[in-house]
Amino acid sequence: MKKFMNTAETMVAESMEGFVRAHEAFVVFGTGRKCIRRRHLTPGKVALISGGGAGHEPMHIGFVGKGMLDAACFGHIFTSPTPDQIASAIEEADTGAGCLLIIKNYDGDVMNFEMAMEMAADRHRIETVVVSDDIETARTGEGRGRRGVAGTLVVEKIVGAAAEQGLELGELKRIGDRLNGRIRTMGVALGGVTMPQNQRPTFSLNADEMEMGIGIHGEPGHSREHFSSAEAIIRHLCETISADISIQPDTKALLFVNGLGATPPAELYLAYYAAHRFMEERMVHIERALVGTYVTSLDMQGLSVTLALLTDEEIALWDAPVVTAALRWSP
Amino acid sequence: MKKFMNTAETMVAESMEGFVRAHEAFVVFGTGRKCIRRRHLTPGKVALISGGGAGHEPMHIGFVGKGMLDAACFGHIFTSPTPDQIASAIEEADTGAGCLLIIKNYDGDVMNFEMAMEMAADRHRIETVVVSDDIETARTGEGRGRRGVAGTLVVEKIVGAAAEQGLELGELKRIGDRLNGRIRTMGVALGGVTMPQNQRPTFSLNADEMEMGIGIHGEPGHSREHFSSAEAIIRHLCETISADISIQPDTKALLFVNGLGATPPAELYLAYYAAHRFMEERMVHIERALVGTYVTSLDMQGLSVTLALLTDEEIALWDAPVVTAALRWSP
Repeated sequence: MKKFMNTAETMVAESMEGFVRAHEAFVVFGTGRKCIRRRHLTPGKVALISGGGAGHEPMHIGFVGKGMLDAACFGHIFTSPTPDQIASAIEEADTGAGCLLIIKNYDGDVMNFEMAMEMAADRHRIETVVVSDDIETARTGEGRGRRGVAGTLVVEKIVGAAAEQGLELGELKRIGDRLNGRIRTMGVALGGVTMPQNQRPTFSLNADEMEMGIGIHGEPGHSREHFSSAEAIIRHLCETISADISIQPDTKALLFVNGLGATPPAELYLAYYAAHRFMEERMVHIERALVGTYVTSLDMQGLSVTLALLTDEEIALWDAPVVTAALRWSP
Repeated sequence: MKKFMNTAETMVAESMEGFVRAHEAFVVFGTGRKCIRRRHLTPGKVALISGGGAGHEPMHIGFVGKGMLDAACFGHIFTSPTPDQIASAIEEADTGAGCLLIIKNYDGDVMNFEMAMEMAADRHRIETVVVSDDIETARTGEGRGRRGVAGTLVVEKIVGAAAEQGLELGELKRIGDRLNGRIRTMGVALGGVTMPQNQRPTFSLNADEMEMGIGIHGEPGHSREHFSSAEAIIRHLCETISADISIQPDTKALLFVNGLGATPPAELYLAYYAAHRFMEERMVHIERALVGTYVTSLDMQGLSVTLALLTDEEIALWDAPVVTAALRWSP
């Protein structure tokens, strides 16, 4: 697939410039463009910081703002931000109450965020929440546990709302860790990811094929299967998710259908319809919904389904006001 | 391109079901599923109604809610809703202050909305605003004037805010007509639209080609050109737009980069950066920005740039609270 770009080298920087210009009412670049942070920080509030490789937009930059993140660091395409970038974000965003780093579980991200913690540890109180919602990684035996994917948004929203309410660092970490245990995501791709460097897909699929258990970095999925109806695809995702998590009668949940970059809204809503019916049959009460393109893998045609089992308190935090580029509401 | 779908016949209905389930807090189906309307109508407020063929989601259903539309009718893919559907929406949404129909300028839409007006004229006061922001149609000499495309969102938001403030029908029509005269849109496609019936693109582009002046119904554009850098593409769109509209010194504007369905957010922000720089060079004050996938042409890979010259009053109406699936904010 073609891309709207100039050069692979400048693509991320130009996109970030556009983002900051479009949302300058509430975001600015940090010093040296090492992160994007809130224009106005709240003294005494625990700072929430996340980040990761570029190519997943609007995550995480689109989640910076009141009620969610204080700062987000971005690396090159699918490449972790450097420890120096993350340490700089900590330096800028911490107003005295400490920092919570929300990290997607990938080796590079975990390593660089931990190095940044060490660099900043003598001047800042820092805790981490590592998100690992992707159920497919465990099966592929990649070793380091499950990947963090679309469910990261849910952690950032709910912990972000709790931080806004003034909760302290240790409590925010507990909320994030508990929540991560109750979120599951599984994705499917109908096509590969076109890398900016060579304009070629990372893997090719025939017209009758799809990749199940896809991640968000252009890597192949868990298994290649025959392309089938949306109903069959979504039921397979939902079956796998619901087999992996303990659903009690009257469980309340957020159901989130996420586009991976090139899937239009009409198809996402159609997928949501199938997922919603499935969950209702299983007696899951879908109390909240999110449908849209939030956590992408460049221009991948595909989607993921996320189920997050929520307590009433977490639902209230989900509903709490948020002013970011990608999520914006008030009660 | 493959699609997440079951059958071409049920695709629109299933997608609409998913939409209503995801946003049931503020939208419901109208009687007989002839439209999607606000769950709670405001007695005494002029009803704003729009609609068009399906395949453009989130437009118009995603603009139904407080501060924007009262009801939206959807047809089959790229096919106008029937006069019966539109008349039914008028019947349900008009709470006594009359109806303003916001119509994209396409023969089928104009004809069917006008027939619905005739059907409802004895019981309802009705006015229309016909949106015609696409600058490319005039050149192709298709006869009926310019098409209504992404700029329709701007009209629906601003007139919607004015309706919420209690303005009467005639005044809302004047606001809409005046505004339409100051909005210009131009689009570009890097690939064709895959029709659900046959899973084939409506036109094919080679790897080194793009379609300039594209519409939103899978029709070919104004000219086929060599694919080039984002900078060159966006400057061409912006040049054409700014040559077509009278920009005074210190003109204030909304700049809107819209994805046509399969273009990821990172590329839209990169395009926004180029468009923003262009407009700044021309001394246009970009007071407000919108970047995202709002007015689609199924799974078309492409984007459009919209420039809307706004008065301070119109900017205030743009900023007014809105609670819809696609646009949601409060001051």
